[in-house]
Amino acid sequence: VEDESMKLYFSPLACSMASRIALYASGAEAELIQVNTKTKRTADGGDFLLVNPLGLVPVLRTDDGAILTENSAVLQFIADRHPEAMFAPRELDERARLHQWLSFIGTELHKGIFVPLLDKAAHEAVHAYARAKASSRLSWVAARLEGREFVLDAFSIADAYLFTVLNWAAYTQVALDPWPAIVEYMRRMRAHPAVARAFEEEKALYLQEQEARV
Amino acid sequence: VEDESMKLYFSPLACSMASRIALYASGAEAELIQVNTKTKRTADGGDFLLVNPLGLVPVLRTDDGAILTENSAVLQFIADRHPEAMFAPRELDERARLHQWLSFIGTELHKGIFVPLLDKAAHEAVHAYARAKASSRLSWVAARLEGREFVLDAFSIADAYLFTVLNWAAYTQVALDPWPAIVEYMRRMRAHPAVARAFEEEKALYLQEQEARV
Repeated sequence: VEDESMKLYFSPLACSMASRIALYASGAEAELIQVNTKTKRTADGGDFLLVNPLGLVPVLRTDDGAILTENSAVLQFIADRHPEAMFAPRELDERARLHQWLSFIGTELHKGIFVPLLDKAAHEAVHAYARAKASSRLSWVAARLEGREFVLDAFSIADAYLFTVLNWAAYTQVALDPWPAIVEYMRRMRAHPAVARAFEEEKALYLQEQEARV
Repeated sequence: VEDESMKLYFSPLACSMASRIALYASGAEAELIQVNTKTKRTADGGDFLLVNPLGLVPVLRTDDGAILTENSAVLQFIADRHPEAMFAPRELDERARLHQWLSFIGTELHKGIFVPLLDKAAHEAVHAYARAKASSRLSWVAARLEGREFVLDAFSIADAYLFTVLNWAAYTQVALDPWPAIVEYMRRMRAHPAVARAFEEEKALYLQEQEARV
């Protein structure tokens, strides 16, 4: 790997999987560096808190050494670097729709519902508070997906992010069955080449990580 | 007001104030429609849930009648329509930095800390969970603002959003005093013409709304 290549810091099946999907879909090259989010150590023993003091993945170290945090920023950076390979709308109205969905997935689903539910140490009232918002938010997603193949008009980083976040439903007892449009969407996404490759790889790494903790 | 003008649905001092600041800073024209977020009625008696089923402000109805939700999407739409008036970075690295800060403010500050704290009906464990994240997040903001006038290289929608969100600290007993860089930043922002105008107007509307509820 050359010094000037991009590096993506990730944790298996975390929100950083969306960035891996975007890399595969766009054909971008990046070194993938696994982070143990419990110990805040990278796979080579480095201190991840020196990379991101908040300890959150993903982090993208760009070609010129700049550190970029926040999932939706990393996703847009990858997509915008490879507009020929990945659907990255340039027209104002379509771009606004992309921004809307990245923000909705990031705030309402990721941060509002799944982060608290995935935090097993959180008080049950915190879990109940998050869970109470799930139905209205998933209804909103289902209404969008009704009759659509993707969140936007073609496969985009919004799909990479939505698939990654809704994949946590299985780990948090959030039922998706009441929304057939979402269930069908997840099935379609799992068959998408970039998603399938990223998902298989990260599932295997996740299991390795779980086994190492036993 | 002409039929084809933009409409911004807002609630006083809610996150939609950032959009009002962006409108004033960019010189964009929009009809401002007040929403009572308790009753979900607009000031003219309309049903806001027909505009946004999730009941959240801001909503921007664009010139062509499209409905745009999510704060960071509305902010970017306004800024991108008036690139001559407002700092809206076009270069990939700078735009990535804007995306990073919009996402951080939206997920970590707005949704992760202040939405639960502003929800007075939430369980005290929910408040404690949100409050526990405040120090690390505010330290991150303070580190960025150290020696900088704005979040980016010039006044931008990231400032409009950050000011609006940190203004809630006074209503939620989140102390900003430990971070002088943030206290000074808020003082500078209150003196910015677009911020000052929006803040004065929304404070007055907020007080009217509170009085009407007594």
